[in-house]
Amino acid sequence: MRAEDVERDVLSRIKPGPEEIERALAVAEKIKEGLLEAAREMGLDVDVMLVGSLAKGTFMRGVDIDVFILFPPETPRDVLEKSGLEMARRAIGMGEERYAEHPYLHGEVDGFEIDIVPCYRIPSPSFLKSAVDRTPFHTRFVIDHLREDRRDDVLLLKQFMKGVGVYGAEAKVGGFSGYLVELLVIKYGSFHGVLEAAAKEWRPGTKIEIQGGGARFEDPLVFIDPVDPKRNVASPVSLESLGRFMAAAMDYLKSPDIRFFFPNPPPTVNTDQAMDFLSERGTGALLVLIERPDVVDDTLYPQVNRARRNIPGRLEEEGFPVIHTHRFVTEKWVGFLFELGRERRERVKKHHGPPVWSHPHAERFVEKWRESDGGGEKNSWGEPYTEAGRWVVEIPQHVEAARVVKKRAREWGLGKHLSQHVEEGRFVVLAGRDAVDMVFRESPVDLALFVDRRPPWRR
Amino acid sequence: MRAEDVERDVLSRIKPGPEEIERALAVAEKIKEGLLEAAREMGLDVDVMLVGSLAKGTFMRGVDIDVFILFPPETPRDVLEKSGLEMARRAIGMGEERYAEHPYLHGEVDGFEIDIVPCYRIPSPSFLKSAVDRTPFHTRFVIDHLREDRRDDVLLLKQFMKGVGVYGAEAKVGGFSGYLVELLVIKYGSFHGVLEAAAKEWRPGTKIEIQGGGARFEDPLVFIDPVDPKRNVASPVSLESLGRFMAAAMDYLKSPDIRFFFPNPPPTVNTDQAMDFLSERGTGALLVLIERPDVVDDTLYPQVNRARRNIPGRLEEEGFPVIHTHRFVTEKWVGFLFELGRERRERVKKHHGPPVWSHPHAERFVEKWRESDGGGEKNSWGEPYTEAGRWVVEIPQHVEAARVVKKRAREWGLGKHLSQHVEEGRFVVLAGRDAVDMVFRESPVDLALFVDRRPPWRR
Repeated sequence: MRAEDVERDVLSRIKPGPEEIERALAVAEKIKEGLLEAAREMGLDVDVMLVGSLAKGTFMRGVDIDVFILFPPETPRDVLEKSGLEMARRAIGMGEERYAEHPYLHGEVDGFEIDIVPCYRIPSPSFLKSAVDRTPFHTRFVIDHLREDRRDDVLLLKQFMKGVGVYGAEAKVGGFSGYLVELLVIKYGSFHGVLEAAAKEWRPGTKIEIQGGGARFEDPLVFIDPVDPKRNVASPVSLESLGRFMAAAMDYLKSPDIRFFFPNPPPTVNTDQAMDFLSERGTGALLVLIERPDVVDDTLYPQVNRARRNIPGRLEEEGFPVIHTHRFVTEKWVGFLFELGRERRERVKKHHGPPVWSHPHAERFVEKWRESDGGGEKNSWGEPYTEAGRWVVEIPQHVEAARVVKKRAREWGLGKHLSQHVEEGRFVVLAGRDAVDMVFRESPVDLALFVDRRPPWRR
Repeated sequence: MRAEDVERDVLSRIKPGPEEIERALAVAEKIKEGLLEAAREMGLDVDVMLVGSLAKGTFMRGVDIDVFILFPPETPRDVLEKSGLEMARRAIGMGEERYAEHPYLHGEVDGFEIDIVPCYRIPSPSFLKSAVDRTPFHTRFVIDHLREDRRDDVLLLKQFMKGVGVYGAEAKVGGFSGYLVELLVIKYGSFHGVLEAAAKEWRPGTKIEIQGGGARFEDPLVFIDPVDPKRNVASPVSLESLGRFMAAAMDYLKSPDIRFFFPNPPPTVNTDQAMDFLSERGTGALLVLIERPDVVDDTLYPQVNRARRNIPGRLEEEGFPVIHTHRFVTEKWVGFLFELGRERRERVKKHHGPPVWSHPHAERFVEKWRESDGGGEKNSWGEPYTEAGRWVVEIPQHVEAARVVKKRAREWGLGKHLSQHVEEGRFVVLAGRDAVDMVFRESPVDLALFVDRRPPWRR
């Protein structure tokens, strides 16, 4: 397929029609007027500003409307919060209070999702009083620097990243924010310009700037915020996402395809099929299922990701080679499904003791493990011996991976909330068919993804 | 048991009677006279000297007689060699020519084993012309510094080290030479003095000196040669032997026992018993049997030891945990018998490719492993995907440990002669019962030692 045909097709699916744009802008205008009206009634000196993708002209179908209320910087924070919410309620009549760094109002008007957010009107981002104070600057920067004829490139890049699975700065994705997508198009000129750079120039640690003077960062990808050179807009991008995006860029430039933007779901897989898959590969399955802690995604996912990174190493140390790890989160569970080289290990463990010259540890070790001499049955498999200057002893150990994980999981530092549930025994560990069947019943798509490891665009 | 009872018992078994001593000294005297007589006939200006344990009074039952012929240092080497052998032949009538650094004569007289060795009469060991030139200095040093009433301590320490398996500087043992034993007794005053120091003071790298001024060495144990401070008398002592001797010393001081000096052999084990042993422990066996290269022990054993150290790591890398390694050498074979955590591994292998940004390697990797696309059946288990910035692909691999070793052994750098036999296919690899049974048939004591890992003095 030719890239331009693919991309025309994509745009026809994601770009809002003129009617949607007109309606969204009209709703936004009405909200702004309502907010200014409320401000007058309440005697407040504030500005209101449309921000986000609607303001920047980079929105896809089903656009959200984000309106910011800018308070004078000397406003006490509690006043800002209370007055902001009050204004928002007067303007749209109702809504649900939500919290990011401070409270904002979320509502729905004429079928559009609305966020009304109070912030400080600061002279520049170096006077930042709350994290959202930067947003108006970002909006203005994009409006000023993104050429109107490049807005479609932003839409294509957003959808490409969605399809590839790297769109979103939230911890769940660890990918690219909308603002970062816009900056990339500004920097490299076009959708293809970005892909070319990613495919050919980027390395881990690549630092991208629009003007010079940015600070140093250790992140996998660095894009200096043009409105705040001490900030890395790409800091949420994980090495995983960066690698996947770069690989996708290379592949797409070689053979463009609609599947990059709209991947096929993995073929469904039932328990029997998954068991056949494992048996052909001579491997086993292990499932660790922790009750989902009642915390927001941005608190939960860093813990999930940390556990996903750490558990395989622990399993390998215990003698269970990890071929693959699939993590998933459902309403009830945080799950880790492992493909293991074996579900059972040897019964004997070689326990390495201290060097023979390490006094008094060496003496204690020998005394402890020779207790069997005295009629104790502590160690039926013989006594300590020396190897390369150390005492060692062979002792029995648990054989089943599931048993080992049940005993050891609480030592594995899985992050605060996950650890707590493990401490409290609010987790299950299953192996083999039990593991596979549980995933099939709780989240069949995750069983499918466990089996089908192709990049989404190759499905 | 009380130490003095044990030691009296030991001495009664190893110390030669007055009759044996008298006869040995008489034979030595006769040989010396014969050599001087020959020198006169041949017009040679040489000295002859009784060296070794007979000269030093530190010999056990079945003593060997070592006589050195000291030539003037200006003697050409070929003259020294020819004249030395000729003198020796005239003195003892017959004998077998042997080679160390240069040829010497080995023979038997009146039931004693005799070595007659030509060397240079140098003013001090710093003028060394051949390795054996040091021997007369060693002999004189011990005669001058070992108190007569400490000779029994030397005998006890030699026998203790024999029993524990660390006596002998040859590569096969990697242990303590007779001269080192004598120096240790001179340094620490007695058999118990040496054990106390080993048990409580020694560390790896401990440097022992009689006078100061010795060079620096990286060996596990350092004993500066009092007649040549640039030499470490303990350089052959491996970490393995050092650790074992120190452990034995600690144990003996706590509970003296005749078994330290005369250990019991391991209980015999037949194939069925060894298989039961493995099955109870949930482990497997793997045997690598290489045809024994036709080289002397001091060439062979360093290679055997290197292989013994290296192979386990390679097996672990391949996914076969190594619980224990037993190496053995018979007339026909060099053998390595491994106890493995499993004899079969998973069929799938996760093959890690280059980082996605590594051009053109990344592109080549993807092209290679996606060949299955084009109808090839190269990789039936799906295509490459990215993980933490790298391409990976899952491919089939050999499952049996024996098969893997057969394929890989030639890459393992086992030392010149062992490698050569492996290259030439002069080796066999067996697993499970076949492995155990082969060892039982070729060298049953090694099967027993494989199963019984207790230190010799605890059998």
